[in-house]
Amino acid sequence: MSATDHAFSVQSTAPVTVPRDLKRRVTILGSTGSVGTSTLDLIDHASARGEADITVVALTAHSKVDMLAEQAIRYRAEFVAVADETYYEDLKQRLAGTGIETGAGMSGLIEAANRDADWVMAAIVGAGGLEPTLAAARRGADIAFANKECLVCAGALFMDAMAQGGGQLLPVDSEHNAIFQVYDFDRPHRITRLILTASGGPFRTFSLAEMASVTPQQAVAHPNWTMGAKISVDSATMMNKGLELIEAARLFPTPHKQIEIIVHPQSVIHSMVEYVDGSVLAQLGSPDMRTPIACALAWPDRLDSPSPKLDLMAMGALEFEAPDPQRFPALRLAREALDADGYCPAVLNAANEVAVAAFLNGHLKFLDITRVTEQVLSTCTARIGASGREGLSLETLLAADRMARADARAAVASLN
Amino acid sequence: MSATDHAFSVQSTAPVTVPRDLKRRVTILGSTGSVGTSTLDLIDHASARGEADITVVALTAHSKVDMLAEQAIRYRAEFVAVADETYYEDLKQRLAGTGIETGAGMSGLIEAANRDADWVMAAIVGAGGLEPTLAAARRGADIAFANKECLVCAGALFMDAMAQGGGQLLPVDSEHNAIFQVYDFDRPHRITRLILTASGGPFRTFSLAEMASVTPQQAVAHPNWTMGAKISVDSATMMNKGLELIEAARLFPTPHKQIEIIVHPQSVIHSMVEYVDGSVLAQLGSPDMRTPIACALAWPDRLDSPSPKLDLMAMGALEFEAPDPQRFPALRLAREALDADGYCPAVLNAANEVAVAAFLNGHLKFLDITRVTEQVLSTCTARIGASGREGLSLETLLAADRMARADARAAVASLN
Repeated sequence: MSATDHAFSVQSTAPVTVPRDLKRRVTILGSTGSVGTSTLDLIDHASARGEADITVVALTAHSKVDMLAEQAIRYRAEFVAVADETYYEDLKQRLAGTGIETGAGMSGLIEAANRDADWVMAAIVGAGGLEPTLAAARRGADIAFANKECLVCAGALFMDAMAQGGGQLLPVDSEHNAIFQVYDFDRPHRITRLILTASGGPFRTFSLAEMASVTPQQAVAHPNWTMGAKISVDSATMMNKGLELIEAARLFPTPHKQIEIIVHPQSVIHSMVEYVDGSVLAQLGSPDMRTPIACALAWPDRLDSPSPKLDLMAMGALEFEAPDPQRFPALRLAREALDADGYCPAVLNAANEVAVAAFLNGHLKFLDITRVTEQVLSTCTARIGASGREGLSLETLLAADRMARADARAAVASLN
Repeated sequence: MSATDHAFSVQSTAPVTVPRDLKRRVTILGSTGSVGTSTLDLIDHASARGEADITVVALTAHSKVDMLAEQAIRYRAEFVAVADETYYEDLKQRLAGTGIETGAGMSGLIEAANRDADWVMAAIVGAGGLEPTLAAARRGADIAFANKECLVCAGALFMDAMAQGGGQLLPVDSEHNAIFQVYDFDRPHRITRLILTASGGPFRTFSLAEMASVTPQQAVAHPNWTMGAKISVDSATMMNKGLELIEAARLFPTPHKQIEIIVHPQSVIHSMVEYVDGSVLAQLGSPDMRTPIACALAWPDRLDSPSPKLDLMAMGALEFEAPDPQRFPALRLAREALDADGYCPAVLNAANEVAVAAFLNGHLKFLDITRVTEQVLSTCTARIGASGREGLSLETLLAADRMARADARAAVASLN
């Protein structure tokens, strides 16, 4: 992405370089979810076109052992692990005689992360992905990052682990991937703003009164993206954007006061970086995760993706508006957690996970998701205090996470 | 613009680098026009902020000797030249006793270009900028490029001169500057499309019948940019975008069939580059030339610009539509000239300059600008034949330019 090292004038007449095959040894933590299956789709696509030479080292899933076993056989994985140990026997049976090694539980996930892949897709949803992702980071793998909780909860730890291992961090969330593509890491002091775009979710135009009675079915119907239920609800409360704000603050050396959120219902501009000269660089695309995944898989090269090409003329218009802090208090909570720092982002994330699960199970009203989260955040913040980076360890973070979950469950119960 | 050479994880905790002063020895060819004065504004701004150490080596103007002399004194230029020799005595008188050297005519402009500035702004409008810009390119200066005619007419010669000199080419036209900022020069084979945006000009919504009777006053009232009269008329016919298409084909190693033009009335997205993975990288900004000029002046660093920051929320919506080939035949003519190559782009440019001047002087109707240009292009193409790159020289190009101007004047006269 740089023209500085080359004589610009020479290149336009030089013959175009013949693409080299992309070689990767790949592990996917969370291979049966939407990001995991999209990653495997892209590997198929690239292999079919003869553009890549990709070996699958390890795959993991939470509990979908049927799909996991199929993937393992198809992609000739060396090792697979299922997080829920109750499915371990089932997994072993399905892979009997294949020579594919198996594991289960957290130790199985960590073993998968420690196998010698040079590129690891971290796509386990929630705080459960933390330990295996840290393990892969520490041993120096390049990490394609689709587990925002890992950065939200343990941002400092994780960035330290990356620095220790020396691998390349490749954000996969479409917003962070957009910023990554146009961020000048050599000159962060020349950047004045990061502008995260938000679709505004399915309730962007709802009144507070209307939002009070929405159902889980309404909440998971995201206007632009096909996503899992948890992240869809986060998109509806805009907590997803709050978590992405925290994630951006961890990923990019730009002060978090300079990170803005703008509602852009069409989700075409995935995010932007503003420079001191007034240039705003952006990445646009169709709402298809295969684009940022392909970017992460091939970086710094590029791979063809079967995602539909952007057709701006068919779009007609791109709109922008300010997010409404009354209807979407999650954005304020995320800024508060980021300001307080220490354990607070982990507490925010844990409380939100419990509250969203309760909403999806019919035990909580939609607007109470953020209320429960706010209540737990303020209680936990008061109890454990905001702790500076020095005091953080994985153990104490996990303890804060457990405490926040217990408090959130109690708060949910008190509302029933 | 690359994250590949650095441990991403380390940077976010590393202290932000203290900006170094930017040092440049600068010459401005065309210092009294809008690009020239904006460049001097930026030099003032950067110097006042202590961000740059810029020495002005040489300045040139067509005939505004009063302004040129003021600039020369204020910026302590070493050498100034006026293109129109009838103003030479006036210029010498104004600078008597200052120690500033003076020159006039084409030899004066070439001497200015040959002085030892390391950065030359090529902002002379029209084919008159060709020779001095080539001179600066050959001696290895970095060239900030605001003279599209130079590339349109003599693209191959100019790119050869840049390659010979080894300087960096820095496009200043907002569209090409946008592409430059997001173009991966290391991997042009991974680029699938360049998307040039066009405002559509003041007559975007006019019918052909309405366009038939528009006046020069209407044509120079551009909706988004403040520009000179000639380029404003080119924007109204969309020949400006046609010339920019040719310029883009010269500047970037992407086949010209992959360069698209899209009408975007708000002129906020200045142009885009599409990659094989579906990522579309764009540069956005306010319609203010100081942004691309600042980019060119500081590249690969950045300089603060006083141009207004982009406010997407105030914009509301960005719209896109296909250009109408019936009402804007200039786009087709430009593609034909590019397909024919050789002298044809120079002929297109020369005929258009004559036709636009005739329109501004009230000697030609608006729709006849493109008709005259088309007629001259087809006559000249038939007469001199499309010539491959090998046959081109500055002398023969200038001869084709003169022939096209004579033909265009005859065509204008025949319509009166």
